[in-house]
Amino acid sequence: MSESQPVRGEFELIERYFTRPVPAGSTHVRLGVGDDCALLAGVPGEEWAVSTDMLVEGVHFLSDVDPESLGHKSLAVNLSDLAACGATPRCYFLAIALPRIDEAWLAAFVSGQSLLADSHHCLLAGGDTTRSASGVTITVTVMGTVPQGQALLRSGARPGDEVWVSGTLGAAALGLAFRRGDVRLSGPDADRMIARLERPLPRVALGERLRGIATSAIDVSDGLVGDLGHILVRSGVGAVIEWPKVPIDDALRSQQEPVQRRLALTGGDDYELLFTAPPERRQDVLAAGAATDLTCIGTVLPTGGLVVVDGQGRRVDTGAAFDHFRR
Amino acid sequence: MSESQPVRGEFELIERYFTRPVPAGSTHVRLGVGDDCALLAGVPGEEWAVSTDMLVEGVHFLSDVDPESLGHKSLAVNLSDLAACGATPRCYFLAIALPRIDEAWLAAFVSGQSLLADSHHCLLAGGDTTRSASGVTITVTVMGTVPQGQALLRSGARPGDEVWVSGTLGAAALGLAFRRGDVRLSGPDADRMIARLERPLPRVALGERLRGIATSAIDVSDGLVGDLGHILVRSGVGAVIEWPKVPIDDALRSQQEPVQRRLALTGGDDYELLFTAPPERRQDVLAAGAATDLTCIGTVLPTGGLVVVDGQGRRVDTGAAFDHFRR
Repeated sequence: MSESQPVRGEFELIERYFTRPVPAGSTHVRLGVGDDCALLAGVPGEEWAVSTDMLVEGVHFLSDVDPESLGHKSLAVNLSDLAACGATPRCYFLAIALPRIDEAWLAAFVSGQSLLADSHHCLLAGGDTTRSASGVTITVTVMGTVPQGQALLRSGARPGDEVWVSGTLGAAALGLAFRRGDVRLSGPDADRMIARLERPLPRVALGERLRGIATSAIDVSDGLVGDLGHILVRSGVGAVIEWPKVPIDDALRSQQEPVQRRLALTGGDDYELLFTAPPERRQDVLAAGAATDLTCIGTVLPTGGLVVVDGQGRRVDTGAAFDHFRR
Repeated sequence: MSESQPVRGEFELIERYFTRPVPAGSTHVRLGVGDDCALLAGVPGEEWAVSTDMLVEGVHFLSDVDPESLGHKSLAVNLSDLAACGATPRCYFLAIALPRIDEAWLAAFVSGQSLLADSHHCLLAGGDTTRSASGVTITVTVMGTVPQGQALLRSGARPGDEVWVSGTLGAAALGLAFRRGDVRLSGPDADRMIARLERPLPRVALGERLRGIATSAIDVSDGLVGDLGHILVRSGVGAVIEWPKVPIDDALRSQQEPVQRRLALTGGDDYELLFTAPPERRQDVLAAGAATDLTCIGTVLPTGGLVVVDGQGRRVDTGAAFDHFRR
């Protein structure tokens, strides 16, 4: 079949857009797209880390979304879960429901997704394509590996640990607020914040380097307060966060203080890593950061839930965590 | 939180319906629901087999579907892919988009899914729940294991092999035709055919026992002609199928001959196993079948695509394979 002809159905769609050969010498993927199952190696001394995320049109993105950005983001949010476990990406599975076959849209979607996948040597190993009754729905299941027993979990934070975060928080939420017309931004600031919203860069390398150093980790997908809350619950500890230390972009700093606080503390979609480490590992943490800005924003306490304080030690209202069913 | 209170959001939903402890002594699942990733063992000498399938309201099921059957079927179609590879189910990941939280619906869905999962010792190891803009969408990713190098693939059929199928074909399609008012059935026949449509039983044990015996295998999800076609293309061979040997239920045999042929040859959703094996392994095949009816329906040829013949050796028209984008 020539590349210029339109695809005629599900099987040709898979053949043209979703079938790529398994590279010779692939250590982890033995068989990719094209059979009933993909086959992955069981490597002694390693564990597979698996995560799945679903993106729904009208909930997570709008129908006029740039398909290349959507392809990128649908994989990025999953790679971010691997990063939060300190896992090395190996392969992913894509299930996608489409109301119709729009080849230009699909080519752009696949291009955005493949570019990110290739940069992490993460192979498309299988999937499912189907028609949808309305709107696009995407489920990506991503798989990576960690040396046995070295995965970063939510449950390991200990009193006295420092709380760290990568990059800046609230940027994606600021991009979304700009999109909705709720805030004003200069052109360059707007572009940067929208890129943070649409093309998040999962902190994969940082996650890998934090193995053996961080005592717990999570990626900031639902907002700092909510995601740190998950660590605290799982670890059975409390924490105090110093609001003036929370790293935010200059574009967010130009907003009014309540907006800064709301977006940086409870805005979702940043996909930064939030983790804890003992104070005596501070140099190791900073070395693991390498080119990534890392900021210590607080301390783990034995109990007391999550408290955010201002520069004078006064408690700051934190609002509620993100919940898909409460919007 | 008491069981009688309504759930208040995504996290409580996951806590109440989707979080079950990993059984002590689980050999393959090290960490289940509740962290950024699930963790699975890399067992030396084993491969992981992975498959993903998406079910969309309005395409694969209607809004008035029985949620317990939907829970069952959404896992069954994936377990069937493992069966086709000869893999032993270990765990699955559920991503589900719901327009609203309907606890009675969810409880029934989870019940239907868990019952099937438990019968195969297949653990819910992770997932994602989200709101949908319209309709329910379900993606299940299932993972099983096979001894290294022993997975049944589509690519191993050799000229001279016999073509086998388990159970009967066309039953699910007959159930669907009855549902649509296209055919008449007696009450017991209708119940049986609808059960085949809504509660298919994946041939997991058969798939496991066919390891080392079958040269190729696939599950019949898109219809005999289409699915055997996948084996032939992948294996680079042809085949002749003798229509009178194709096993069909008495309920289908009571229909007119063209209906019998159409449903048994091209009807989807049966989830029987279709496989090839050398004639000298016939006794091993039948022993692997154990309590499952197995029927030899044809022979693999060196070339010539797929030909279906009647009792007089005349070519039978086979219609087209199932395709989600062509309905």
